[in-house]
Amino acid sequence: MKALVYGGPGSKSWETVDDPGIQDSSDAVVRILTTTICGTDLHILHGDVASCEPGTIFGHEGVAEVVEVGAGVKNFAKGDRVIVSCITKCGSCSFCQAGHPDHCQSNDAGIGWILGHRINGTLAEYVRIPHADFSMHKVPEGVTDEQAVFLSDSLPTGFEVGVIAGGVKPGDVVAVVGTGAVGLASVLTAGLYGASRVIGIDTNDFRLRKAKEFGATDTFNANDKDLKEKVFALTDGLGVDVAIEAVGYPETLQRAISLARPRGRVANIGVHGTPVEFPMEALWIQNLNVSMGLVDATSTATLLKMVASGRIASEKMGTHTFTLNDIDNAWDTFQNATKEEALKVVLKA
Amino acid sequence: MKALVYGGPGSKSWETVDDPGIQDSSDAVVRILTTTICGTDLHILHGDVASCEPGTIFGHEGVAEVVEVGAGVKNFAKGDRVIVSCITKCGSCSFCQAGHPDHCQSNDAGIGWILGHRINGTLAEYVRIPHADFSMHKVPEGVTDEQAVFLSDSLPTGFEVGVIAGGVKPGDVVAVVGTGAVGLASVLTAGLYGASRVIGIDTNDFRLRKAKEFGATDTFNANDKDLKEKVFALTDGLGVDVAIEAVGYPETLQRAISLARPRGRVANIGVHGTPVEFPMEALWIQNLNVSMGLVDATSTATLLKMVASGRIASEKMGTHTFTLNDIDNAWDTFQNATKEEALKVVLKA
Amino acid sequence: MKALVYGGPGSKSWETVDDPGIQDSSDAVVRILTTTICGTDLHILHGDVASCEPGTIFGHEGVAEVVEVGAGVKNFAKGDRVIVSCITKCGSCSFCQAGHPDHCQSNDAGIGWILGHRINGTLAEYVRIPHADFSMHKVPEGVTDEQAVFLSDSLPTGFEVGVIAGGVKPGDVVAVVGTGAVGLASVLTAGLYGASRVIGIDTNDFRLRKAKEFGATDTFNANDKDLKEKVFALTDGLGVDVAIEAVGYPETLQRAISLARPRGRVANIGVHGTPVEFPMEALWIQNLNVSMGLVDATSTATLLKMVASGRIASEKMGTHTFTLNDIDNAWDTFQNATKEEALKVVLKA
Amino acid sequence: MKALVYGGPGSKSWETVDDPGIQDSSDAVVRILTTTICGTDLHILHGDVASCEPGTIFGHEGVAEVVEVGAGVKNFAKGDRVIVSCITKCGSCSFCQAGHPDHCQSNDAGIGWILGHRINGTLAEYVRIPHADFSMHKVPEGVTDEQAVFLSDSLPTGFEVGVIAGGVKPGDVVAVVGTGAVGLASVLTAGLYGASRVIGIDTNDFRLRKAKEFGATDTFNANDKDLKEKVFALTDGLGVDVAIEAVGYPETLQRAISLARPRGRVANIGVHGTPVEFPMEALWIQNLNVSMGLVDATSTATLLKMVASGRIASEKMGTHTFTLNDIDNAWDTFQNATKEEALKVVLKA
Repeated sequence: MKALVYGGPGSKSWETVDDPGIQDSSDAVVRILTTTICGTDLHILHGDVASCEPGTIFGHEGVAEVVEVGAGVKNFAKGDRVIVSCITKCGSCSFCQAGHPDHCQSNDAGIGWILGHRINGTLAEYVRIPHADFSMHKVPEGVTDEQAVFLSDSLPTGFEVGVIAGGVKPGDVVAVVGTGAVGLASVLTAGLYGASRVIGIDTNDFRLRKAKEFGATDTFNANDKDLKEKVFALTDGLGVDVAIEAVGYPETLQRAISLARPRGRVANIGVHGTPVEFPMEALWIQNLNVSMGLVDATSTATLLKMVASGRIASEKMGTHTFTLNDIDNAWDTFQNATKEEALKVVLKA
Repeated sequence: MKALVYGGPGSKSWETVDDPGIQDSSDAVVRILTTTICGTDLHILHGDVASCEPGTIFGHEGVAEVVEVGAGVKNFAKGDRVIVSCITKCGSCSFCQAGHPDHCQSNDAGIGWILGHRINGTLAEYVRIPHADFSMHKVPEGVTDEQAVFLSDSLPTGFEVGVIAGGVKPGDVVAVVGTGAVGLASVLTAGLYGASRVIGIDTNDFRLRKAKEFGATDTFNANDKDLKEKVFALTDGLGVDVAIEAVGYPETLQRAISLARPRGRVANIGVHGTPVEFPMEALWIQNLNVSMGLVDATSTATLLKMVASGRIASEKMGTHTFTLNDIDNAWDTFQNATKEEALKVVLKA
Repeated sequence: MKALVYGGPGSKSWETVDDPGIQDSSDAVVRILTTTICGTDLHILHGDVASCEPGTIFGHEGVAEVVEVGAGVKNFAKGDRVIVSCITKCGSCSFCQAGHPDHCQSNDAGIGWILGHRINGTLAEYVRIPHADFSMHKVPEGVTDEQAVFLSDSLPTGFEVGVIAGGVKPGDVVAVVGTGAVGLASVLTAGLYGASRVIGIDTNDFRLRKAKEFGATDTFNANDKDLKEKVFALTDGLGVDVAIEAVGYPETLQRAISLARPRGRVANIGVHGTPVEFPMEALWIQNLNVSMGLVDATSTATLLKMVASGRIASEKMGTHTFTLNDIDNAWDTFQNATKEEALKVVLKA
Repeated sequence: MKALVYGGPGSKSWETVDDPGIQDSSDAVVRILTTTICGTDLHILHGDVASCEPGTIFGHEGVAEVVEVGAGVKNFAKGDRVIVSCITKCGSCSFCQAGHPDHCQSNDAGIGWILGHRINGTLAEYVRIPHADFSMHKVPEGVTDEQAVFLSDSLPTGFEVGVIAGGVKPGDVVAVVGTGAVGLASVLTAGLYGASRVIGIDTNDFRLRKAKEFGATDTFNANDKDLKEKVFALTDGLGVDVAIEAVGYPETLQRAISLARPRGRVANIGVHGTPVEFPMEALWIQNLNVSMGLVDATSTATLLKMVASGRIASEKMGTHTFTLNDIDNAWDTFQNATKEEALKVVLKA
């Protein structure tokens, strides 16, 4: 089959490799129908993810057709159309049973994200899915591939790590710092817990326009010198209830912190590469709560219901479509998202 | 002033009575701008509420203008436009401090609903509001009286006693048995916790049409012999996540119970007059949770934010408008709601 | 092997039957080391459980040694000493993934309790455990069989269906109506959520003495005519925060309801055989919450930590010890618990 | 009367000042019976608290007798023995109504801690208590002053900001970094949410001995080079469920963070004077939750129930007793807590 193989920092190639097969009775092998590229894939190519070894196939998102299942797989059969979860979940370790497969202990790394990271991923024609009973979701009729593909990772991340971890509740004012794909996923799902107002903040005007399309009630350019004052003017002078960080730099996390009111909640989604200084001398008395983390993708089934009932238009996340064979152009578009006015690219087999 | 006085079972009159005045330093006196009639007022007239003595002025809902405040009132001043809460809250008893003023212990009855019940109410030109700092809400500019008046009781009741007590969460399927005004308030607010599907059930086709307007995704006539099968067909054969009862009869509560899936939640809003048999021999293993109760009206501030930001169209609750002087006609219309195709009547000073 | 076989209403025999074997790759076969008899086993013998067919081996509790595992079992190996959960959990259906294996949908009945009910159980020398990875717990060194055996069902039931479902929180006053084995499990675990006072209520003085030993601060005989007044005198005249019912009759559930304060929570553990009339005309305004149900046994790992650290003395549940071969005498003792002053009987292989 | 007056950095004096009187109808004036000194008082004397002006009387803890109440005070009368809360709560602002009087908006600073900070405090013979109905608690008979005095601040802080904000739940392993008075309050109350194991960490052996007396199951000296390994050895190699910081330095907070397992919760109680670097490049994927803050003291009533029922021995906090007149010696003892082997000092009128 063909697959996009990581060759070490700066190197990737769409090349012919061996087809995957069943290795464990709980495995499935699936044929990719629709997939997409994640910001994390860019990080891997840049050499930022030391735990990803050269030779690994990229990718951890996708809608696929089941082509073979191991003897122990009970919930799926050949021919099923499925969402592949970005989290591979054993289901039985203490973390999985507690609802936290992001730290599934069934592998040495103790991390649920292994596809396109520690084992071969979904930017390929076929992929092996370990613990298949726990790591895929059947796609109901009426939900398209283009809607479903963003339920592998992007939407659950914005919803779980942003909206749920941030404790959004009815009436809250929510600020989203960084309205790229994942920040927009928070914008799109903040209403599921009744946010009264969602404020999008970004340096990029295209993204701010998108934020409005996704449901933001207000947007501000991050370069606006009076940004804090303007946000506080919307929130009785005290700041927002929930500030979601979806970028991954010290200054964006510090900005999110600076916008939260006393007793506010800061939800960090961004992947950070350096330490971040917290002004604890001022914060300790502010009673902030700061959460952070990798997605569990345990909300995929819920989000799928919302997509199926028409309440979430997940297909909005995809701005450009390519064939899987044309993955190099797709990658370039995604890598130059600002210039290309791209959010997520859709790759069709 | 003029007021609607309860004269004992079957008797009411719009008559001249003494103006109210400040009795305690925490009181306010307000002038009613807009008010409405509640189903409970009909119950009082029928003689069903023994704790309401003849001579009491009816009513516990309204938007008003503050005309005088006691020396201890800190949060309101003459001229403020306010929502009068149906719950009079001392703020400092253990129930109030725990967020449950429905059982405020500051009066002998240990009940937060005293307006139009144990003291004179809002179906009058003026009314005295005890514990004013805790029992009124300023109405922001841009929110009309016609929107705000339903935040005294109707909307909080459907939201708190139905949606919140029922534990609605994103993705849930919710059935509302009885889509009168309060049931519709549950329909209207179920989305604040992300319901994926809301099923309205009633015997009255006007109310079912309204349920669709208020956001129900599906409606069924309660007389449909295949009702249960049809609801179960929408919910993978197991029943709804949350069943809200908004009528108050044994058969409607039993219907709500019958529609809930294992681990489902049944929220009773209805005011019952007789015991109800629970089929515990079947239910105990179903792991149902059954809640019931009077409203706290602690959600009024949250709902007001949602109305102000345009996310809840509370004015839809009012179908007919009268002047306060024309209260007898308003009462007749509300009492014959089915025939008149009425939900709530709006009374303007 | 030898096993206790249900022969239809009123009939049981300790007889030689075929040894169990692996039927599915997720199965384990275990050798029983220590087991016990449950009140539900008595119900089955009486013919009250229609879903249990003659020929079934009794029992759903036990500590055992793993003797064989199927090819798909990853968490257990031959020789492991384990607690067998009363709930057989597939782990991957929507109920299991939501933390509610009591309604595991992997079997036709949609019930997690199948051992000694729909398949052969633990009152035997050997037993097959389906979904072994999810349905057993390793017993750490230092925890005895006599402590661990009550973590299959009794302790989790009192804790989950009583204390957790009842929402016990620090400072609460808790009444337990019926201080048999399961009620005592609630008494023993109410402190895990900080109950300030635990009131035991029973008709049996032996059980009331035991309640004190298990940590009740107060006990009352259920026949005391002034019971309600005495309980209310302990609770500022309003009733208890949480009332746990652990018997299963209309009058005991009604008693629990009558003891709860406004905004109180009633947790029904008892297995009911008939409908129960709820005085909804009085209750609707009391804002009670009533929960009910079968155990999930998802707390077994937590309780095991508490037993291991010495914070829960679970061995107190066992009052009489027999050899497994002497099961008929053990059954008689348990069946005549009042006369024999028995709580649970311990059966050793 | 006599009172301890702050004279600017480094200066304090026990001097004669005017008696306080009622200024607002919601005030009370109380006579101090028993009081204590807080670490924050030391900070004020050192000049670390710029918002405290010279001339202010120190102190925010105490048991007192009501000597006069304003006309609007409903819950207290002359002669009542009360706990003075460290938090002055208006009860009606949005923060108070949400249960967060630590950020009460009734004063310009938007902070609930004003006694001995922005207005005169409790290290005096008499003190005026604003918003008396919300800011005091009656002490039941049978609870001594020496037990009750630590419910003003110390115990609620360890419980709310440590145990509750840290989300301790049954079975959890909890580490407390810093076992001074407030850290010990966390140790003492961790059992209210069922911690299975509590690990005390400090550089001071006296404090570690106290930690054992207060209920720690394990203690380690913070200077132990293998500390992390030893803690991880107790927690299956992954770290503790909850790490509570009760010191206020970068290295102690970083230590608490380093001990938490993936999905762990870090609760900062310490008052920080400088920024703290968070290793976000490692933490983001650990899914930590970090809380911080000032106490609400909303748990005082609950803790009082636990003290009254004998479940919490709060008097253990007091190691040395003085008369109020001897406050200079008491201050010296408290300031040299390590040398004096002191936790809290008790001052009796």
